[in-house]
Amino acid sequence: MTALLGPVLVVGTGLVGTSIALACRRASLEVLLSDVSPRHVRTASGLGAGRPFAVADVPQLVVVAVPPDHLGRAVTQALVETEAVVTDVGSVKTAPFHEIESAVGPARLPRYVGSHPMAGSERSGPLAATDSLFDGRPWAVTPHATADPAATALVEALAVACGAAVVRLSPEEHDQAVARISHLPHLLSVLVAGQLAEAPATHLALAGQGVRDVTRIAGSDPVMWKQIVGANAAALLALLGDVRDQLDELMSAISDGERDALGALLDRGVAGSRAIPGKHGGPAREMGSVFVSVPDHPGELARLFADAGASGVNIEDVHIDHDPARDTGLVELLVAEVSAQHLTTSLESRGWVTHR
Amino acid sequence: MTALLGPVLVVGTGLVGTSIALACRRASLEVLLSDVSPRHVRTASGLGAGRPFAVADVPQLVVVAVPPDHLGRAVTQALVETEAVVTDVGSVKTAPFHEIESAVGPARLPRYVGSHPMAGSERSGPLAATDSLFDGRPWAVTPHATADPAATALVEALAVACGAAVVRLSPEEHDQAVARISHLPHLLSVLVAGQLAEAPATHLALAGQGVRDVTRIAGSDPVMWKQIVGANAAALLALLGDVRDQLDELMSAISDGERDALGALLDRGVAGSRAIPGKHGGPAREMGSVFVSVPDHPGELARLFADAGASGVNIEDVHIDHDPARDTGLVELLVAEVSAQHLTTSLESRGWVTHR
Repeated sequence: MTALLGPVLVVGTGLVGTSIALACRRASLEVLLSDVSPRHVRTASGLGAGRPFAVADVPQLVVVAVPPDHLGRAVTQALVETEAVVTDVGSVKTAPFHEIESAVGPARLPRYVGSHPMAGSERSGPLAATDSLFDGRPWAVTPHATADPAATALVEALAVACGAAVVRLSPEEHDQAVARISHLPHLLSVLVAGQLAEAPATHLALAGQGVRDVTRIAGSDPVMWKQIVGANAAALLALLGDVRDQLDELMSAISDGERDALGALLDRGVAGSRAIPGKHGGPAREMGSVFVSVPDHPGELARLFADAGASGVNIEDVHIDHDPARDTGLVELLVAEVSAQHLTTSLESRGWVTHR
Repeated sequence: MTALLGPVLVVGTGLVGTSIALACRRASLEVLLSDVSPRHVRTASGLGAGRPFAVADVPQLVVVAVPPDHLGRAVTQALVETEAVVTDVGSVKTAPFHEIESAVGPARLPRYVGSHPMAGSERSGPLAATDSLFDGRPWAVTPHATADPAATALVEALAVACGAAVVRLSPEEHDQAVARISHLPHLLSVLVAGQLAEAPATHLALAGQGVRDVTRIAGSDPVMWKQIVGANAAALLALLGDVRDQLDELMSAISDGERDALGALLDRGVAGSRAIPGKHGGPAREMGSVFVSVPDHPGELARLFADAGASGVNIEDVHIDHDPARDTGLVELLVAEVSAQHLTTSLESRGWVTHR
């Protein structure tokens, strides 16, 4: 077992790098900071994320947290200039690995083990960082075939020190997984949202919660997504080809009025939406919704959650629905199906107007 | 001005029909109920939704709330057997209108004005009904070219009596609008979810909030969606063809490494996601997120919302994030961007761990 003792050198003090530095400080590790922008290092250091890296420092672990396009070069540099274990936090693993492999050769390569914490924010830069960014989030650790098991253990120890849950995958598996559960959903969300860009206002006035949910992630930073999609081209193209075949099937089922073929596609969607694991990584549970009408001012939500809390039912998720007409919100409380009726009764006894 | 005085005859006492009946009762209107299932009528009547329709009754307005496949026939029957204004609540308007037009002829047609309340539930049947289902929701009213203006006014009065906000559109415009803001998002959500159906568990373990949001609606009733999609084939095929062209563009931009073309598609998605109107139908506001770590038991959410309420900041939306590792939830509070910093400071002063 390789203990993570530090120092940890963080290269790239943006949102993710500084958050890792802060989480390591929270775990009482010594942290060294480096960035092409001395201003970013000063800011991160000022936030208590560590001290600027000096040439004499000997890190145990280097964490490279730079934009996708610069990742291969920065990891290579860390492997050449230090004797430390080196990891990165990039969203894509295969293409950067091949770049690193051909740049550093087989002697240094075992010290590199890629990783990918599944957390972020629509904000960026060290000021948006927090030591709790990774708490409870999945953190993929992706050792290649020639990785040193001790290096893998050290990177997994970093993820645990940051409060995350380790998911171990090969680089290729990782890229296929994120293509499926992150990059493909992002691109199809973008295509749906693109259809709204020039829609008349009277059409958009009919928008409900469904289209809002589907298009929310389409609003994320296009510059970063351009790099992510570009770096995971192979895995994404395979999936996009599949989706195009299914879109063709769907279109011919609709135009030929083939209800059975249409039904099969819709059924597959139901199965897929149920395949996503539930909270705490357990199997998906049967969930029920309770809708509550809530006057739209600050104190009312508090009163609702106090009353819901008094019922003893655990709220698993919440949606506040948009109300184009007047100052009433419609709040959807998602709870275990077995608890939904009890919550409804309990809220109604406290004067709330609910429906299921 | 045509006043809605009743009686209102509701044909089809499922979720939507019974909810309209209950909302009309709330507005002190006399309501008559009819359904192919006498049991449904008894249930709805027992819920206080009105009394069973008798042959001697003379309704002022008939509301047809039957499944899409039976809609044209039921509206036709109501126009032939009564002198009342007739509306329906189907999700698609053009195809049923042509069926009705050719069945009843020009003399009776002016009494028909279609409509579509934008509300529903994943549950069905009269027991799921509520008089508040339409409160604050958009309700499309879709007069055809030869509709009697008095009939249109009466249907709009029904929507208002049910607490909804009227959006007037032609039947063709309506079908294009719902194809874009409801049916297309649904089908693409289904295609994304379909890719998860056979995914390995280690891939699904990396799922975050994004894919959950995109695939949520893919879980809805496939039998109903088969009918909706079939009835709006023309409008949907045009949009799906557009999406396929853009998918081809996207795939060639990715495979050829054309970053500018990829960027243009991503930018269009950002523009579309911002085009959806904000709460209360106003222009979309700049929103900010505040993330709060919350221990995962009943009382804690109540305490959080009490503290958020005390800050005086209005919470516009809430997401509770899934936590695969331990008993901590991550709650995302969406507030006006200008209020986000104040909320953060206020919550931290009360001991909450937040980040943005």
